[in-house]
Order: sequence, then structure tokens, then C-alpha cells
Amino acid sequence: MPGLKVVVIGGGSSYTPELIDGFIRRAAELPTAEICLVDIPDGQKKVRIVADLARRMVDKAGLATEITISFDRQAALSGADFVVTQFRVGGLDARARDERFPLPYGVLGQETTGPGGFAKALRTMPVILAICRDMAACCPDAWLINFTNPAGLITETVLKHSRIKCIGLCNVPIHMKMNIAKLLEADPHDIFIDFAGLNHLVWGRTVWHKGIDVTAGVLDKMLDGAALTMKNIPNLKWDGDFLKSLGMLPCPYHRYYYMTDDMLAEEQAAAAPGGGGTRAEVVKKVEERLFQLYQDPQLAEKPAELEKRGGAYYSDAAVSLISAIFNDKREIHTVNTSNRGAISDLPDDCVIETNCVIGKNGALPLTVGKLPPELAGLVQHVKAYEILAVEAGVRGDRGKALQALANHPLVPSVGVAKQLLADLLKINAVYLPQFRD
Amino acid sequence: MPGLKVVVIGGGSSYTPELIDGFIRRAAELPTAEICLVDIPDGQKKVRIVADLARRMVDKAGLATEITISFDRQAALSGADFVVTQFRVGGLDARARDERFPLPYGVLGQETTGPGGFAKALRTMPVILAICRDMAACCPDAWLINFTNPAGLITETVLKHSRIKCIGLCNVPIHMKMNIAKLLEADPHDIFIDFAGLNHLVWGRTVWHKGIDVTAGVLDKMLDGAALTMKNIPNLKWDGDFLKSLGMLPCPYHRYYYMTDDMLAEEQAAAAPGGGGTRAEVVKKVEERLFQLYQDPQLAEKPAELEKRGGAYYSDAAVSLISAIFNDKREIHTVNTSNRGAISDLPDDCVIETNCVIGKNGALPLTVGKLPPELAGLVQHVKAYEILAVEAGVRGDRGKALQALANHPLVPSVGVAKQLLADLLKINAVYLPQFRD
Amino acid sequence: MPGLKVVVIGGGSSYTPELIDGFIRRAAELPTAEICLVDIPDGQKKVRIVADLARRMVDKAGLATEITISFDRQAALSGADFVVTQFRVGGLDARARDERFPLPYGVLGQETTGPGGFAKALRTMPVILAICRDMAACCPDAWLINFTNPAGLITETVLKHSRIKCIGLCNVPIHMKMNIAKLLEADPHDIFIDFAGLNHLVWGRTVWHKGIDVTAGVLDKMLDGAALTMKNIPNLKWDGDFLKSLGMLPCPYHRYYYMTDDMLAEEQAAAAPGGGGTRAEVVKKVEERLFQLYQDPQLAEKPAELEKRGGAYYSDAAVSLISAIFNDKREIHTVNTSNRGAISDLPDDCVIETNCVIGKNGALPLTVGKLPPELAGLVQHVKAYEILAVEAGVRGDRGKALQALANHPLVPSVGVAKQLLADLLKINAVYLPQFRD
Amino acid sequence: MPGLKVVVIGGGSSYTPELIDGFIRRAAELPTAEICLVDIPDGQKKVRIVADLARRMVDKAGLATEITISFDRQAALSGADFVVTQFRVGGLDARARDERFPLPYGVLGQETTGPGGFAKALRTMPVILAICRDMAACCPDAWLINFTNPAGLITETVLKHSRIKCIGLCNVPIHMKMNIAKLLEADPHDIFIDFAGLNHLVWGRTVWHKGIDVTAGVLDKMLDGAALTMKNIPNLKWDGDFLKSLGMLPCPYHRYYYMTDDMLAEEQAAAAPGGGGTRAEVVKKVEERLFQLYQDPQLAEKPAELEKRGGAYYSDAAVSLISAIFNDKREIHTVNTSNRGAISDLPDDCVIETNCVIGKNGALPLTVGKLPPELAGLVQHVKAYEILAVEAGVRGDRGKALQALANHPLVPSVGVAKQLLADLLKINAVYLPQFRD
Repeated sequence: MPGLKVVVIGGGSSYTPELIDGFIRRAAELPTAEICLVDIPDGQKKVRIVADLARRMVDKAGLATEITISFDRQAALSGADFVVTQFRVGGLDARARDERFPLPYGVLGQETTGPGGFAKALRTMPVILAICRDMAACCPDAWLINFTNPAGLITETVLKHSRIKCIGLCNVPIHMKMNIAKLLEADPHDIFIDFAGLNHLVWGRTVWHKGIDVTAGVLDKMLDGAALTMKNIPNLKWDGDFLKSLGMLPCPYHRYYYMTDDMLAEEQAAAAPGGGGTRAEVVKKVEERLFQLYQDPQLAEKPAELEKRGGAYYSDAAVSLISAIFNDKREIHTVNTSNRGAISDLPDDCVIETNCVIGKNGALPLTVGKLPPELAGLVQHVKAYEILAVEAGVRGDRGKALQALANHPLVPSVGVAKQLLADLLKINAVYLPQFRD
Repeated sequence: MPGLKVVVIGGGSSYTPELIDGFIRRAAELPTAEICLVDIPDGQKKVRIVADLARRMVDKAGLATEITISFDRQAALSGADFVVTQFRVGGLDARARDERFPLPYGVLGQETTGPGGFAKALRTMPVILAICRDMAACCPDAWLINFTNPAGLITETVLKHSRIKCIGLCNVPIHMKMNIAKLLEADPHDIFIDFAGLNHLVWGRTVWHKGIDVTAGVLDKMLDGAALTMKNIPNLKWDGDFLKSLGMLPCPYHRYYYMTDDMLAEEQAAAAPGGGGTRAEVVKKVEERLFQLYQDPQLAEKPAELEKRGGAYYSDAAVSLISAIFNDKREIHTVNTSNRGAISDLPDDCVIETNCVIGKNGALPLTVGKLPPELAGLVQHVKAYEILAVEAGVRGDRGKALQALANHPLVPSVGVAKQLLADLLKINAVYLPQFRD
Repeated sequence: MPGLKVVVIGGGSSYTPELIDGFIRRAAELPTAEICLVDIPDGQKKVRIVADLARRMVDKAGLATEITISFDRQAALSGADFVVTQFRVGGLDARARDERFPLPYGVLGQETTGPGGFAKALRTMPVILAICRDMAACCPDAWLINFTNPAGLITETVLKHSRIKCIGLCNVPIHMKMNIAKLLEADPHDIFIDFAGLNHLVWGRTVWHKGIDVTAGVLDKMLDGAALTMKNIPNLKWDGDFLKSLGMLPCPYHRYYYMTDDMLAEEQAAAAPGGGGTRAEVVKKVEERLFQLYQDPQLAEKPAELEKRGGAYYSDAAVSLISAIFNDKREIHTVNTSNRGAISDLPDDCVIETNCVIGKNGALPLTVGKLPPELAGLVQHVKAYEILAVEAGVRGDRGKALQALANHPLVPSVGVAKQLLADLLKINAVYLPQFRD
Repeated sequence: MPGLKVVVIGGGSSYTPELIDGFIRRAAELPTAEICLVDIPDGQKKVRIVADLARRMVDKAGLATEITISFDRQAALSGADFVVTQFRVGGLDARARDERFPLPYGVLGQETTGPGGFAKALRTMPVILAICRDMAACCPDAWLINFTNPAGLITETVLKHSRIKCIGLCNVPIHMKMNIAKLLEADPHDIFIDFAGLNHLVWGRTVWHKGIDVTAGVLDKMLDGAALTMKNIPNLKWDGDFLKSLGMLPCPYHRYYYMTDDMLAEEQAAAAPGGGGTRAEVVKKVEERLFQLYQDPQLAEKPAELEKRGGAYYSDAAVSLISAIFNDKREIHTVNTSNRGAISDLPDDCVIETNCVIGKNGALPLTVGKLPPELAGLVQHVKAYEILAVEAGVRGDRGKALQALANHPLVPSVGVAKQLLADLLKINAVYLPQFRD
């Protein structure tokens, strides 16, 4: 066996050392011959820095994995076994714009949720579908592991509009699981959570510890507010009465729906002059610092500062998923995949985030069945938005785009939706060929 | 055949002459022996005024229908064939409070939609279930025609928590149909609209005129803003791009969801000092004037002023429905009834507003099937709220009440939901025995 | 208004005078300018006889309806408003073969049910789809009223594989309703039956008389065995315990499933030498006699002998359906139409036989919801056969054809299915172009 | 940890040494303190023989597991962690009667399928529900692992009519998997089969070998007829055209549906004088021989002859399932469990046989979604029978019992169903208290 070829689209990302670290730690089970970092010419400088660090890491680990760079996607994809997408169309500058343009309308600006996530999805769709076309030509049997946000929407785009085998991945579920293990002082292997929902809108319906339902205890601990948070989003405290009456665990991103007013206030304060900037603006500074560190020829491991970037457990989620496929492990991962009836309240062909058995034949979702009304309404509303968003973004349909925004629970009116859409199309025009007349 | 006995709960309502007028106009097909107006002792003065007017109307029409008054509900219900509920727990004063208490939180205050509608529903549930218990004892085979708002929620309460045969009725669909007929200068009998949705959240998916799909033409005409409005709600103009991309007709109440910001601004302006007052406060004045008119011993018909009250086509909807049942007509009415699979995207046992074949054996919904995402998300979100609202209101469960409000699309956060709930329970304490400790 | 053009494919059928009679009786509501009888050149003699009789009937009624003949289907279809299909590929000889070829295997031979019906469906599919192509070219807005058996399967073929507006019609439901009215000595207009199922597998779930559930009483009356039978099938007595535990009305054709052994014995006896012949063979003699009668130049009405043919209420069902469409009546007929969610236990896109509101915009099925297990199992099994039959017949797929037969509840094994299929393909080779290599 | 207590109801079964063998082989992962063999007084002799053998086996293995005997079920259940049911109401004599009574009507007589299985189910229901009541009182948190046939029906009875945690188990899926591994000369761990269906009516939809779909290859190999058979049922060869057009693997028991005529002929031949007897009669002789062997004080392992009994992999299936629960393994087993939406075409609350993730919190079914028509029809028909059978057997309802039999695909008519039911109730009267007047 000659070893795997893994292609990373968006290879110049500051996250890449995290990913390389994951491959190194699982080298015994995942014989990786080549990791090819693909990027666009504009990203040349960064990808070279990252590749050099990656080579030093691999060398230090005593592995033979070859780290390559490519700006020719089709050439890179030839012979690929796994393709990991972590690219960002427009970079952090575009993300910063996504975070800012809704604020004047009193609407949340966020990378994945709301109008900002919609803008990012629209920018990403033409690119991801071009990648799929290249994969169909160059590596039709390869697996696409999609990390590019909004991960659910982008995975739905791929699964509805291409034939590529694709699993969407997000570090939120593993993050919740690891944090809960810490809260309970338990071994993560003894924790099983009935996850169900959509990407960044996933609930832990029941938390089992060694087969015992410990959900109520976890909710009690969550009331101190310290737990289950993530670097990427403000750490607002949950309301105790709400959590108890819900009886399930929201994910950190639920704050955008359940604490909309406070989250907006945080964002507006951060975006105001002297406020520290939006998350993208903060991340930009973190990234600059990271790339300085990465250039240190003595550095041969991922630096501790990378943790601030927000991708905790990213490599663990990604590489363990790839290993589960490669080794036909049939173990459970929480991923984004086609519903196929798993959640009865959602269409069969939409993408959900849920527990799946992962093996060489892909992701088989565990049956969720009907959701309780406490979950169903919100999740169905957001999914309706997502379905419309995919239709709008793939076809470049302004009417559907308006319907998508008008049907987003965080957009207060059709009037605001229209203004947001006009702004979005104008600001992102260069990235939205599908909407050009 | 001795003729029907019709019992009107909330008989002292200013709407009653409208209803009487309906019975008079359909006397040929509906032999009504007695119309019994039931009210509470506090409503004694009004019900007597209404009864006297009703008697003059019946006399003028040359009918033998007896108009009676009762403050003993069980006695009144004995022998009833149809029971019409149009009562209002707490009267217009409670409605005015419903309209005002959400405003300080930047949330819409409205009789049927949002926290105001939730408050009204919670007040009404104990009373409607008591009526059902009385009906089970005194007239178990009678039909309950429920007009009390929020009509969908109250009908769902009855159908889930009693054995009484119940149809919920609202004048919105007939209003839309009649207005469209006017717009098209067509005979209303030639218009058929594929209605589907929930009460005050019903869409006309297709408008057929003599079997031709004229939806697009109707939408064009709606863009002038003059059409499809109702007295009860502000007449804001629809956005043309939105209507065209929707391709279906929203109902007037959709403005609360699609134009939330503008509707809130209207409400806040009206509620401000010198603003003219909320709708309930306006209606109170209309009612005072109406009751003055009603006392005129020369008056023997419903006065023209009644139209301002907002119940256009109310009598037409109600009495033609009763006649369709009584005469086993099997004709189509748009009513609130148990879903039973008609709308695939909603639970079987929830109440929907949709086209039904009405006959002596009740309401048989036409099949709607799956809703497009433009409708599904909002309607599922609101239905989740309604399901939670019924659970909360019947059991007096504060946790479910919080979940209901937090899951309402018009409530911006759990924090606001908690405050609204606290206010609501305090303001309405006297009417909410189920929430007493 | 110039009047309707109605095209009858298979115009030379002995049923046509029945149909003409229906148009005459409803002339006041259905202004029919032309009835064009289309047939194949082989049927020339019969269609001329029928047309002459039809002309005499129309003349006697004092109507101006023109009766025309055509052997050029496309020309005939030009300008058509309604197309009625009552053709029979291979004629009664093919039907007689359908009735005989399964008998040696101990399997029922029947026109619509079992392997005989499958053979007839396969023969019909290429022709009906050719008619649909012609309609798409010549009269794309016309309605196709399909009577050709197996009516459900053929209607499913049309609705799945063409864009033509089609309603499938059978006289079984109206026959049941009229017979029940007789049993109850009631006006048929006061009877309402909750029909649901498939063509020739439809149940009357509840019988309402003036809104009262009289099902149990009807079942009691059915136990005398005299009721609800039809000319086309043997009149075997129902088992009382079975009917009572079922609590619903089977249709006469249910005997093929519920009394398979006795029905087979009847068929085998009839098919044996001296047994009187199969139903097709009996009908052939009836037809010969009918065509003799039809040639009588004095005859200007449908002869009483036509009743023996088995199509009672055929004209009533057909012409009242056409009138309901033309006059946008929105009244309830029991027809074959696309499920669209009406019966939750069956696929959305399959054809069911159920109560529909009929108007100018077509057939809107009433919601049936979930079927009880007493009905669901059989109906789902037969529908699976039908779905496979359509796939097999449209594509000429032998594997699917084997699966169809092997999945038919009346075929005892795969081995028998294979033999039946081989016989069927051989006997009908000339009519099955889709299965030619 | 003191070790598990396992209670075996029907402990005197000849299968028990197989089960003991399983516990011995997995002793490292399953610390079993006590295995209590429960039986009825009539089975005293056999259970003592079995217990003695079990003790010798355990001793030889060097384990401390205590083997106990009890005729007091409640006492035995106290403190149980797992309860395994392998009892047989009426013993092999009753089974022999089940196999014989349908034959005169030309209907299959079989332990689990058809009228014989129905009889066995009716006998078992009162006993299994009594066991559940005892468990609720004595060991409410214990797991019930049901092997008693018909395993699907009995598991459905338990899950619908008790609160006991129950998983139904059958050795057919593991048998298929092991045989396929042999066919492919593959390691069973590399084989993954998408099982779905009902007990004894389960299909392998896709066979994956190291993530490659090898279904077509397996079907090719099956055509030689040697594969996938089981001791309990005749080994008839599959039809090649049928298997290829099906494209999925039937289970050995599918022969009763797909080869009904040949299977009946085999049974009739076996049951005829000199025919060797029915399967129960053959098994009786095998059992006699086994019990002779079991009494050999030198014997300290399960004898090779046990394999003839038909329970291959029984212990493997059972003990590995118990271990997966106990050790919270979250690995995939094919078991009988509540549907909960896993197979969209079947009711949520019925029991299916499908792949489940097994852990301490029970069985979580993988999503199957919609079945193709080749499977759906038969499986829905049989499930309708099963739903009716549970209703009939739990309530002792003769009408539902008649409906159950009349809706079984292997019963040719209502008339035969009535006779079968009359015979069944008479023959089994002593075991059917629920049907006593």
C-alpha cells in the first residue's frame, strides 16, 4: 500500500498546522504518503510558510509524508484519496464585511449565521461546485471532507448539485462532548450524546455517561456559564429556567437565536470605534502573529497560540473521521450528511448534523425520528432558509435570495431583507458570478 | 322539524347583530327556532341591548325565531344544535393590555399574534374547556363553531383536550376571497383559492378564476396596496419583489411577520400619548357608539357602522358554515380543523386553516401535501409555538410557557421571553387559574 | 360559446351508446358540439354502427351535437376539450387470453387484477403514452378521462410519464353508492361514503346517511349477499364475521383477494369445456347481440340489454365528471388521481382511488391520512406491484416485470411468476413493442 | 463489581449449552456471577440435566460463574441484570401442531411464519407479558433479550404493552453475514451488510466488503444454492433471474414467501406418513439425542451435534449483544427494536429488524429511509398482519385475529382464515386464556 494522498484546498490557512498535527498523531493508523496544500496564487506567501512548517513537523515526527504545494487544482486532485476543503473565498476581509454589513439594520453579523453566513455561502457555492467538477474529472472516488463554512449549507450544495461523496464537518459537537467530559470529570469515551439538528444549530438531546442519562446534571453545571463555550463566539451565560424547561443542551451558536439581542449588542460594541473589532478583525491579528511564529525555522510543532484561533479539536475531528473511513471503523461521529429520513420533520434530501456510523461506505445517520416542538420549529425555519439559500446561490436567483433572507428567523422584515440583499450583492459582487446579469 | 337551537356564548358582543343578520338572510335554508345569547352577569346590560335589537330584526324579517338570554350556561346548552363561541375573557380592557405590554420590549402587541395572542389564549383555555365539559354533559352532539381568538389555538385546545365536535372559523379567508373577486371584477362563486396554513397565517397558494390560474394577475393588483386589507390591522403596502418571488398570496396578518418593524412602529406610535390608542382602545370607542345605536328602538337591522368593527363577512362565514353542516351540503369552506395529514409538514393532530368539504359529518380537509420552503419554515415555527402554547395553557406549565414564547418568531430572545411571561402572568393573574400555585 | 369537442378513443366500443345517453341527459349543462369517435381501421365496421346509433339518439333528443368518426387520431384530437379513453388493445380476444393463461398455474385470470390485469396494462401502456404525445401536440389543455382498464395503473402511467391532465374513472364507487342507497331506500344525494384505496381495491370506510354513520347497518344488509355486486364478477357471499370485524365496506372486486380460492374455482369451472366460458367470452356474445340491436335503424336509444354488459352508471360517472370540470362545480367524485399525500401510507406520486373535489382546476383529493392495518397491508402490497408494473411496462424491463408479478399478492411464488411472465410475453408479443429485443 | 446476574427463562432448552459456551468465551469482557436457569416444573428433568452440563462447562473453563436453577420466576428475577427468554409455550409438541394444522388447507405450517407462527405468538403473549410484569416488580432496570419466536412479534408485544427495556434477537442476520464472509473468503469484520426488514423477513440491501459494494458478486455466488441456508428450513435453490432483478439478498426464510408452492410441497411430503416428520418432529429426535449426550458426566463442552439443532451463532449473537450493552460498545448489531422512523414506510411504533448501534443506552437504529417497492409491499403487508396479531393476542379479540390471518399474504382467503382460526383456537385452547369467554 503506497499510502494516502490528501489534498487540502485552502492549504495556506493558519489552521493547517493543526491538521498536520492530527495526521502526525494518527500516523500509525493512517499511512499518508502526500499532503498537498492547494491555494490560489494570492495566497502563495502564506502557503509556503505553512508548508515549510508542516515539513518541519513531519520531519520531527520521523514520518515520510511528503508535503507538497500546488496552485493547479486539477493536477493536485489527480490521485487524491481525501480532499479537505478549508478555503475562505475573499479571506478574512470578506468575513469582516459579512460581520459588519448587517449591523446598521440591527441585524446580527456573523460568519455562518444570518445574513453574513448567507453572503459567505453565496461566495462559496460557485467555488465548491467547481472543485466538485474537478474531483469528478480527476478523483471521482475520493472523499470530500468539507470544513468550509457554513458547513451545513455548503455540504447541502455539494450533495444536491454534484455526485461527489461528501461529509461536512464542524468542531462544535466534539467541542461540546469534550467540554462535557471535563465538566463531569469523565473519560470522553464514556460520554455519548444524542446530537441532532443542523450545523451550528445542533442540540445534545440526551447526554449519556456509561449508559446513564446525566443530561439534567450537565444542564445544572452549564448554569454557571463557564462551560460549552467556544473561542469564536461571545460567552454569554444561559438562562437557568430556559435550560431546565428545554431539558436539552443547546450548542454555543444557539446564542444567536436564543440571545439575539445581547449578541447583537456585543457585536455592535465590538464593531464600534475602539471596540476591538469584529471577530474577523481580531482573528486577522491572531493570524498575523501566527504566521510570524510559523516562520520561525526552529518551530516544528503547532504553537500554543493556535488555540486562540478557535479551531479546538479541529484536527481531531477531521483526521479521526478520515481514519474511520479509511479503516472502515463503523464508529460514531457527528457530521453533516444527507437526512434520508433520519429526522422525520425535515426533507429527506436536506443536510443535517447528526450522529452517523462512519465507515468506508460513508456516513449512515442514526435514526432521530420526530423532534419535540421545542426544537422542531426553529430547526425547520432555519432549514427552510437553507433550502432557499442553496436554490438562490446555485442558480443566482435574486427572488429566491430575497425569500431566503426574508425566511431567516434573524431578519426582522422583508424590507430589511431587501436592503441586506442589495448591500450583500454589491459588496460581494466580485465573488458572485452567478448573480451577474 | 321543530327548528334549530343556536347558543351564542359571548352573546352580548357587538358582533351579534351581524350574526343575527346572517341567520335572517339564510332563514329559508336554516330553520332556527331559538337563538340563545349567553353571557356573564357583568355583561348583562350589553346582552339585553343586543337581544332587544335582535328581536326587532327578527320581527322585521317576519321570522318566528325566538331570541333568548341566559346567564346559566348549562341550562342554555341543553338541547343546543350549534354553539357559537365569540366571548372575550377580560373584554376589550384585557385586549388593550395584550396590545400594550410587549411594546416596551420592542415586541409587537396584537390580539392574536405574538405575546398578546399568547396571553389571550391562556386566558381563554380554561373557559373554553369548561364550555366543552358543559357541552359534553348537556348537548354532546352539538357542533361548536369557535370564533374566539386566537381561533386556531383555541380550536386546537378543544380538539386535543375534549371530545366535542368543533370547527374554528375566521373571516380572513372569506375576506381575501371577496376582495379578490372585487379586484378581478368577478363573481365570487367563480373564484377558488387553494388556501393553506394556520389561522392568521394562511396563504392563498393559487387563485383560480373559472379554472384558470390567475395568481400572478392578482399579485400584480395587490401591489397597489389597496387590496386584501382588513379593518383590524394597519394597511401597509406589500413589497413587489417579495410578492413576485413568493408567487402566492399572504394574508393581511402576514404583515406581522413580513413587516414586523413597520408594524411595530405603527403600534408604538398609536400607543404613544396622542397616538389614537391601540386597536382595542379604538374598538372600545366604536363599540360604545354601536351600543348607543343598538339602543335605538327604531333600529331593526345591523347598522352600517358595524362594518368599522372589523368583522366583515363574519356572519356570512358563520351562518353559511352552519347551513353547510345542517344541510349536508358538502361544499368547500376554509376553516380551522385537525390536520390529519392534510399538510404533510405538520403534525397530524395539530389544527390548520385550510379548505375543507363541509357536511353533516363535519370538516374533511382537502389534501395540501408538502409546502414549499417559502411557507414551510414560518408555518412550522409558528405551529411549534402553538403546540407549546396549548401544552402550557392547559396544564399551567410555566416551563412550557417560556418555551412557547422563546419559540415564537416575533420574540427576539429568551431574556425578553422571560420578561414578557412574567408581565403576562402578573397582568392576567385573575384570569389564569391554571397558573396559580 | 361554440360547444365542446369530446373525443372518444375506442369509439367503436359497445359502451358508447351508454356514453352518448349520458351526454344527452346532461345536454342542458354540457353544450357538446361534437363527439368524435376514434378507432383503429380494424374496428371500422363497429364504429360505423355505433356512430349511426349515436346519431339517431342525438336526433331523437333534438340536439345539434355532431357525431363524427375518425381513424386519424391526431386530426381528431385537434381542438378537443375532453378525451375519453375506452379502448381495449387486442380486443376481447386478448382479454379472454388474459383470463385463461394464469388458470393452469392455479392463479386467477381476470381483466384488471392479477396477471391478466398485468398483461392488459403492458399492452395498454405504449398506446396510452402515444395518445398522450398526440394530445401534447394537438390539444395540450384538454382533459384525459381514462376508462381503459386497469384504470388505476393506466392513470398512474399517464401521470408519471406525461404532462397531460388526466383523471382515471371507474364505475365501482358510484355502483357501490347507488346500491347502498337502494339498500337503505335512501336518496343517493343523502349518502356520503369515505372511499379510499386503489382502483378495484377501494373500501368504503364509513357510510354516512344525512350525516349519520350507518356503516354497521349497511354491513348487516350486505350479509344477505345480494348487494353491492356487479355484472362483471361472480356474486359470492361475504363472510359475516369478516365484514363485522373489518367494519368497512369492501368493493366487489375485493373478492379476488378475500375469496381467492372460491373465485378461482368459479373461473376454472367457467373456463372448462361446457363451463360457459370466461367473462370475456360471455361478453363477446353479449356484444354480438348488442351490435345486432345497434344496427336496427329504428333504435334511437340505448337498449336495455346494454345493462348486461356491466357498465352500469358508466355514463353517469363519466359525463357528470366532465360536467363537474366544465362547470367548475367543485363537487365530490370518486376518481383515480395522484396521491399527493392524501393517503399517508402510500407514495406521493402514485395513483389512488379516492374522493376528490372536482372543478375546472382538476381533482383535489380529500385527506385520508393513515389507513388502519386491516386496509394498509393489502393496499400497500398491491401498490408496490403497481409501481413495479408501471416501471416494467414503460421501460420494457423484464427484471422489473418479474418483480412486479412476484410481488403480486395473488401470485404464489417466484417460480410461477416466471412462468406467467414467459407465457404473457409470448401470447401478447405483437402488442408489446417495448419488450422486443 | 460483583459480576452480572443473567436469568434464562426456558433454561432447560437444548440451546442453553450454546449460550453457556458463549458466556465462557467472552468471560474476559463479561464478568458473570450467576446464570439462573428458570423453567416450569414440567421441565424439571431437562433443566437439571442442562444445569449440570453447564456447571461442568464453567468448571472446565475455570470460571466462578454460579449456575442456578429456579422454578420461582419472581425470585429468580430479583437482582437480574439481563433476562434471556428462550422458552417455548407448549414445547415442541405445540410446535409440531403449528406445523401440521394449516397443511390440510394447502397453507404452510411453520414455526414463525404464517398461521403456525400466529398460533405460537398467541400462546406466547400472555406469558411474555407476565414475565414483563414480574420484571417491572423485581428488576425494572434489567434488559430483556428476547429469543422466543416469532421474535419480532413478541418483541413488538413487549415494547407496545410494557415498559421493559427489550431487544429481540435472531440468528438469521449473523448467519447471513458469516456465510457471506465464507463465500467471499473474507474476514467477517470486513463485511458490512445494510440489513432492513422484519424478523425472518430481513433483506441484505447492500453487502460491503472493506467499503466496496460486492452485492452483485454475492448474488452470483448465491445462485449455486449452497449458500445462506439454515438448518431450520429446506434449502431450496434461488431463481437467478429473480435474485438479479431484486439486486438484494433475501434471507433464508424469504423462501416461504417467494417459493411458497415448493416449500408447501416439501412440508406436505415431510408430514405425510413415511415423510420423516415436520421440523419439530425432527428436532424432537435431535433433542432426545442431545439430552442423552448432555447427561454424559464426561461431557464438559457443547457437543458437535448441537449444530444440527439450527441455532448456529445463537450464542455469538446473544452474548456479544449483552457484552455490547454491558460494555457500552456502541457497535452495530442487527436486532429487533422499535422503528421510531428508521424505516419511513412502516409505523413508528412497530418493531423492525435492522442494524442498530448497541450501547448501554440500548439500541439506536440506523436510518433506512424509504424501501424500494420490491421490498416495501411484502414487508408492509406482513407488518399489517403483525400489528393485527399483537392487537388480537393481547386483547383476546377474535375479530382482530380473523383480520390478522386474513391479512397474512400466505393465507389464500377469508374462508380459509376462518377455518384456520377455529382450528388454532381449539387446538391451543389450554394455552390461550385471553380467548376464553
